[in-house]
Amino acid sequence: MSERKIPTKLLLEEKELPQYWYNMNAVLPEKHDPPLHPGTLQPCKLEDFEGVFCTELAKQELNVTDEYIPIPEKIKDFYKMIRPSPLIRAYCLEEALGTPAEIYYKFEGNNTSGSHKLNSAIAQAYYAKEQGLKALTTETGAGQWGTALSMACAFFGLDLTVYMVKCSAEQKPFRKTVMETYGAKVYKSPSETTEVGKRILQENPNTTGSLGCAVSEALEAAVKTPNCKYVLGSVLDHVILHQSIIGQETKFALEKYGIEPDLLVSCIGGGSNFGGFVAPFIKDKINGKAKYEIRAVEPKSCPSLTRGKYAYDFGDTGKMTPLLKMYTLGSGFVPSPNHAGGLRYHAMNPIVSKLYHDGYINCTSVEQTSVFEAAVKFAKTEGILPAPESSHSIKVVIDEALKCKKTGEKKKIVFCLTGTGYFDLNAYAQYNNKTMTDYIPTDEDLEKSFATIPDIPQNK
Amino acid sequence: MSERKIPTKLLLEEKELPQYWYNMNAVLPEKHDPPLHPGTLQPCKLEDFEGVFCTELAKQELNVTDEYIPIPEKIKDFYKMIRPSPLIRAYCLEEALGTPAEIYYKFEGNNTSGSHKLNSAIAQAYYAKEQGLKALTTETGAGQWGTALSMACAFFGLDLTVYMVKCSAEQKPFRKTVMETYGAKVYKSPSETTEVGKRILQENPNTTGSLGCAVSEALEAAVKTPNCKYVLGSVLDHVILHQSIIGQETKFALEKYGIEPDLLVSCIGGGSNFGGFVAPFIKDKINGKAKYEIRAVEPKSCPSLTRGKYAYDFGDTGKMTPLLKMYTLGSGFVPSPNHAGGLRYHAMNPIVSKLYHDGYINCTSVEQTSVFEAAVKFAKTEGILPAPESSHSIKVVIDEALKCKKTGEKKKIVFCLTGTGYFDLNAYAQYNNKTMTDYIPTDEDLEKSFATIPDIPQNK
Repeated sequence: MSERKIPTKLLLEEKELPQYWYNMNAVLPEKHDPPLHPGTLQPCKLEDFEGVFCTELAKQELNVTDEYIPIPEKIKDFYKMIRPSPLIRAYCLEEALGTPAEIYYKFEGNNTSGSHKLNSAIAQAYYAKEQGLKALTTETGAGQWGTALSMACAFFGLDLTVYMVKCSAEQKPFRKTVMETYGAKVYKSPSETTEVGKRILQENPNTTGSLGCAVSEALEAAVKTPNCKYVLGSVLDHVILHQSIIGQETKFALEKYGIEPDLLVSCIGGGSNFGGFVAPFIKDKINGKAKYEIRAVEPKSCPSLTRGKYAYDFGDTGKMTPLLKMYTLGSGFVPSPNHAGGLRYHAMNPIVSKLYHDGYINCTSVEQTSVFEAAVKFAKTEGILPAPESSHSIKVVIDEALKCKKTGEKKKIVFCLTGTGYFDLNAYAQYNNKTMTDYIPTDEDLEKSFATIPDIPQNK
Repeated sequence: MSERKIPTKLLLEEKELPQYWYNMNAVLPEKHDPPLHPGTLQPCKLEDFEGVFCTELAKQELNVTDEYIPIPEKIKDFYKMIRPSPLIRAYCLEEALGTPAEIYYKFEGNNTSGSHKLNSAIAQAYYAKEQGLKALTTETGAGQWGTALSMACAFFGLDLTVYMVKCSAEQKPFRKTVMETYGAKVYKSPSETTEVGKRILQENPNTTGSLGCAVSEALEAAVKTPNCKYVLGSVLDHVILHQSIIGQETKFALEKYGIEPDLLVSCIGGGSNFGGFVAPFIKDKINGKAKYEIRAVEPKSCPSLTRGKYAYDFGDTGKMTPLLKMYTLGSGFVPSPNHAGGLRYHAMNPIVSKLYHDGYINCTSVEQTSVFEAAVKFAKTEGILPAPESSHSIKVVIDEALKCKKTGEKKKIVFCLTGTGYFDLNAYAQYNNKTMTDYIPTDEDLEKSFATIPDIPQNK
């Protein structure tokens, strides 16, 4: 083992838990274009959001002025059970790679949801409770978000209905069991419980479901249920706001232990963990004071940033949501059966999209089998079996560390290990059995899906 | 929330990681009876153990003099990734129960093995590597031990063969996938890879396997493989020695935060977590200085301590192991299909048995459905879905806390949350669907299994 001046776990004490979420919208030199009402094509007002979302969350979504948003006491009390999460020096991985680079990872998987999703779930359930609501609805694909929200709703005594994409529910039956144990009602989507579900089943009885359809069912159920709203776990700015707790803690810990990072890395799907992880590091990128690079990592099978268009698009395939200005492959993009479920989304959070568009962050895309190779390397040295999503970051971090081995650079690399792979073992089994395949959409594939981006004046 | 003078997580820093394991054998006022060679019925010597076990582990097994055993540096380096594990004040559970009691839990599940088993697995793999071995064999029932050992062997570059009880392997296919991801060879037991496995399959082609059979296969494979030894994850004294890291940390943390416990609780199967958790608290029980009670919790379906006999018995149904003086139901005891897999063992570690026999510790037995009821209560308030094994402790802790609610006592209750239930979701699904049943062996059942205890002079 190398000499260790820095402890393996760079702990923060409870009193060092951040008291504020960090709102990137307050510091963007140029705001991102506003969400548009899908009917009028006018910027959404508070009341447009309030029909579906909790009022406080809608306010947070539209807040572009307050840099620091205080975290309510009850949310902090919950955070204290799982946070501050550890920032860990990957001494054993460094040694296995023989790299002079220093590798650090912020580990968000140490809770039953298995991921960072709980950071926003508990906040959203709290605001719902405060508003006097009795129930929430949501959709889930890979299942991390649905699990996190079921935990949050159990904590605050709210009813929860989850529409889980049918093929995911069948591939990952245990996700459903965890949600049910926490008291959630889980329907495979499409289901017979909504009009939109019934219609889709009538048209195509053998459909395996889609996230777009699950969103539509959850929206319909929320509107039809008294004292009930719809919540979601990524893409929107208020979700990224809650996830900024990750970045705040990371920044505090780096400062506490005197570490100046050279490279920050995180995987990216809808943008929730990436946006939250980098949030407090953005201001210095904008000021030009930062000497660090910020890098997103996405799958080559769903390359929203690296090959997408920057345009107004819908968040769902049903084209019911507000239009957001974002990097998108088109809401008609059909993701391949890539197992990194959380990174299969066709588009990207508007703040992250704007940061990428303006050149403050970079993005690398990687192939799945190389991601699992990196995941297994990490698991064997650092003792954590990572989620497929998180392993996209690991792939890039290992590549960078091996570059340092050649050049002798002692880069300080910090990444977000968003979650664990305990419910993704069919994917690991495929990797072990060498039946895993890679998939990269062709230019023609993307031309087809780009054609589903709405043809509106704002996109000219 | 109640006023909080004590933080939710009672953290220890890396420099507070214990430097020693605690050896209870050195402080027992009367040593437990020695292991006997099954052929000669004479006390086992070092060379009797060395044929099968690593030399250093055999020495630890026979060490009854050194109270503190230094932990080697490389093991500490590994521990630093997952330890010190948090001691957590269960504020939210206390509030949900409305109890004046203070509840604390030592959480051992924050690693991919999902349990405390990794504490001994890494130590055993280390000594095997130091001895120049190339490979290890073991058996696993519920899968926690096999997973932990596969992680440890991957870390030290050792080959590992795991014999997993056939019905467990089929009920928990993902356990097998995790072990394979870490590079282990996993055979469903009985298998065609050993003579004993072939014989059993010939006699009973439809057998679902048993732990006793898996032990026999692992032993045979170890003896037949060059540079290979057999290791196991519970029952023996050296395993409990390694697990004393749990108790050492718990004691340090309680002292650091000024908490004097009234009741220490942990579940008990073969004794590894219980023994490790209570180890450094035993001396003061023996001295009469301790004001705390120490309580083991076992399932009513497998009541080794509460209804067993204190006698010399075999560790396996194949009757190949040394004879140990312990509380036992007889090696012929057939445990019910109780899902708390880790607590289905017919007997109990010799130190723990001696402590119970001499009245230093108490034991409560509980029924499965009440255990799952407590588990769900805990999951909904503390955000961790507990392992069925650990939930036996939770059941007793909640009962005690509710007694305090009646009496107004502010008891300080500390328990060991040994692991998570992420691979036990079939059991949770049964509980959710109300298809879970309880089982208590009758006196006649036990008379039959007691008859399998060997009829030797030492048992007269």
